[in-house]
Amino acid sequence: MQLLQALCQIHAPSGNEALLTEYLLHYIQQRQQQWRIQPTVLAGGEFQDCIILVFGKPRTAVFAHLDSIGFTVRYGRELVRIGGPNAATGYQLVGRDAQGDIACTVVVDEDTKALSYDYHREIERGTELTFRCDFRETATTVQSCYLDNRLGVWNALRLCETLENGVVVFSCWEEHGGGSVAYLAKYIYEHYGVRQALISDITWVTEGVHPGQGVVISLRDSLIPRRSYVEGIRRIAEAADVPHQLEVEGSGGSDAKELQHGAQPWDWCFIGAPEDNVHTPDEIVDKRDIESMLALYQVLMREL
Amino acid sequence: MQLLQALCQIHAPSGNEALLTEYLLHYIQQRQQQWRIQPTVLAGGEFQDCIILVFGKPRTAVFAHLDSIGFTVRYGRELVRIGGPNAATGYQLVGRDAQGDIACTVVVDEDTKALSYDYHREIERGTELTFRCDFRETATTVQSCYLDNRLGVWNALRLCETLENGVVVFSCWEEHGGGSVAYLAKYIYEHYGVRQALISDITWVTEGVHPGQGVVISLRDSLIPRRSYVEGIRRIAEAADVPHQLEVEGSGGSDAKELQHGAQPWDWCFIGAPEDNVHTPDEIVDKRDIESMLALYQVLMREL
Amino acid sequence: MQLLQALCQIHAPSGNEALLTEYLLHYIQQRQQQWRIQPTVLAGGEFQDCIILVFGKPRTAVFAHLDSIGFTVRYGRELVRIGGPNAATGYQLVGRDAQGDIACTVVVDEDTKALSYDYHREIERGTELTFRCDFRETATTVQSCYLDNRLGVWNALRLCETLENGVVVFSCWEEHGGGSVAYLAKYIYEHYGVRQALISDITWVTEGVHPGQGVVISLRDSLIPRRSYVEGIRRIAEAADVPHQLEVEGSGGSDAKELQHGAQPWDWCFIGAPEDNVHTPDEIVDKRDIESMLALYQVLMREL
Repeated sequence: MQLLQALCQIHAPSGNEALLTEYLLHYIQQRQQQWRIQPTVLAGGEFQDCIILVFGKPRTAVFAHLDSIGFTVRYGRELVRIGGPNAATGYQLVGRDAQGDIACTVVVDEDTKALSYDYHREIERGTELTFRCDFRETATTVQSCYLDNRLGVWNALRLCETLENGVVVFSCWEEHGGGSVAYLAKYIYEHYGVRQALISDITWVTEGVHPGQGVVISLRDSLIPRRSYVEGIRRIAEAADVPHQLEVEGSGGSDAKELQHGAQPWDWCFIGAPEDNVHTPDEIVDKRDIESMLALYQVLMREL
Repeated sequence: MQLLQALCQIHAPSGNEALLTEYLLHYIQQRQQQWRIQPTVLAGGEFQDCIILVFGKPRTAVFAHLDSIGFTVRYGRELVRIGGPNAATGYQLVGRDAQGDIACTVVVDEDTKALSYDYHREIERGTELTFRCDFRETATTVQSCYLDNRLGVWNALRLCETLENGVVVFSCWEEHGGGSVAYLAKYIYEHYGVRQALISDITWVTEGVHPGQGVVISLRDSLIPRRSYVEGIRRIAEAADVPHQLEVEGSGGSDAKELQHGAQPWDWCFIGAPEDNVHTPDEIVDKRDIESMLALYQVLMREL
Repeated sequence: MQLLQALCQIHAPSGNEALLTEYLLHYIQQRQQQWRIQPTVLAGGEFQDCIILVFGKPRTAVFAHLDSIGFTVRYGRELVRIGGPNAATGYQLVGRDAQGDIACTVVVDEDTKALSYDYHREIERGTELTFRCDFRETATTVQSCYLDNRLGVWNALRLCETLENGVVVFSCWEEHGGGSVAYLAKYIYEHYGVRQALISDITWVTEGVHPGQGVVISLRDSLIPRRSYVEGIRRIAEAADVPHQLEVEGSGGSDAKELQHGAQPWDWCFIGAPEDNVHTPDEIVDKRDIESMLALYQVLMREL
């Protein structure tokens, strides 16, 4: 879990993913010699801060978003949300402005719910703050801010080790309105004819989804994937005997929104471990669900 | 109205339109010999569950969505909406899971408005339920669930009988966030240069739109079409003396949303009969408005 | 400011921008001989009511929207909003229907907030009404309806006088859901390889943005632009010593929404003068901020 811990500590809120992109490009360069197949790496320039890895003759693409939620400093001591972070007085935030490194705390006004920071000096307008990473590992769990979606990124990187045919995509802006998957999906469809997608992201523990009972295959969230594609995935998961749970939600979204609404005919399915304490500094995931997540991705990329 | 009745009875909620697609492909194959022109039929593969029919040298495309509203079974006896169905305790629903055919009823919690079903057994998670079809015809009206949009589909199929030049499109996901028109519109524009659209769908009876007073030409809903295109349509409707009404709404949407927001310069206009009891099992339309709807589409496809 | 006054008086609500398009095409034809470079003018047909001007070898595109907010006449004396106009009883509106020119006033129901008009006759269904223009200029300010975004258009036109390399785009529908930038952005990217954008539009005076303190560079609104692009712009503005202010908002949007969500990898930044009395007939802007806006666009189009 050292890789996961390293990923969780990198400052990469939506719109400013560059540090994590750099880390991944370095990691890929270092590690790919030990991978079964060496991918074509597409990055920089027209890919902005995204990365596309192309392995063999791809039929399916895995999307994992790099960016995290956070806060932007507005005027005075006000904070504005990046994405939808939970906020509670005392949450520790980190960042950096021209005056140096910052370690401050969130203050939520009890009456107005307005957000501000508590710090010994004023922070420069527009500075991004992210949760301070307190990575905790037990025999059965990992806990940290930003498991959503550094765990989805970790899953994609681990998948690369044995992947023979497929596309792995690291996207930006997912937590805050999207903005990269539309062009990534267009590029992949036009250059490789791929239009099957798996969304490597983290979902919620709910009354129907329980920690430790396996990776979640989502039948729907705020959007509804094509039934026949999801049914095919369920059949493969059952045949391979990978522990999994089925999710049915009426809200929530992912990189799949841009696939669904884009001008290419993508089929997609959200598949990811469930976490509790969503969008807080204390996101927690059961290790068995991480294991079944990777196992399911491995089999699906072979058989879909 | 036998065709309309058959269409209303087919289970095809957003994301699982395949049964209706299959029905239409069979119908088109059977009937097209009697049509004035035999179209090119584009379906399957990259068109997912959509169908495009290309007649002659097209200048205008008609969009009719296949999918309907409904419900997804969540956890326990909970239901989640597909699109925006009206829900009232006692509404009859049908569906199918691995244990067989289902006929249950909706229960709306009076306090929380939460939706659930009443049935003698538990229904499998993720099962889709749609309104049971009770098709009723009088001398002056038709009444059923899913006139929105099986009547729009019916109108498009009847239009095919005499169509010489034009594109007819059967789309998916319209009731639940869209997801097919973006790529259909791109395909049609790039392959045929067509960028004029008519939306063959059903609208609302309101204080300004009355049953029996003719097909509705919508001047706007939540979106505003290009004025000059809609004015051209009004002039043709008036010159042809087809009974029609003008609608002005601040809300509501259609497949036109994806045309408006897509990366091709489509002009579009929503033209359809008005219905009462919208999104219930008892949608009702005046036959005179069906007649003028078809008549207006026939003249517009010749003259636009 | 005669050009600005002329622009503010033209009726061009979202969806019916044609009169302003015509005015601009005429203006461009008349004036371009005095411009440093004569641009390629793309308009009509597949560009609907938009205009693209291409100067030299472009690296950056400026987007200015033509359309304004307003009202549509619904049924009886009801009004429906076009975009998000402020409404107060007594605001003067103008328009035209088949019976002739109209000058009426807004009525806001105190209890229901419902909008209607007060006029001596009924106005035809679907008629668009816009604010009556009362253009007021002092030594230090301009005041009128529709400074948003006729001032953005004015800035773009003045920029054309000295522009050597760049694209200037006049877009439609910005105030009401968008609908043209997606295809304009695709066209520009595919034909010229340009993917840097500046949004020439007007923003708000707030507790952090003050009239007279310079053009606003927006670090974010409801969307977040790529940090590295915005940082580059800030560096150029500082090096050139152009007075400017930094904005951080959690809401609001612009033509940038379509760039962010489209299928090309655009970088974008909103740069515009701030106004007070937003979306009323009395929008007011400080002349110093107009001056620094044009100055900043001139330097950015050279150096970006």
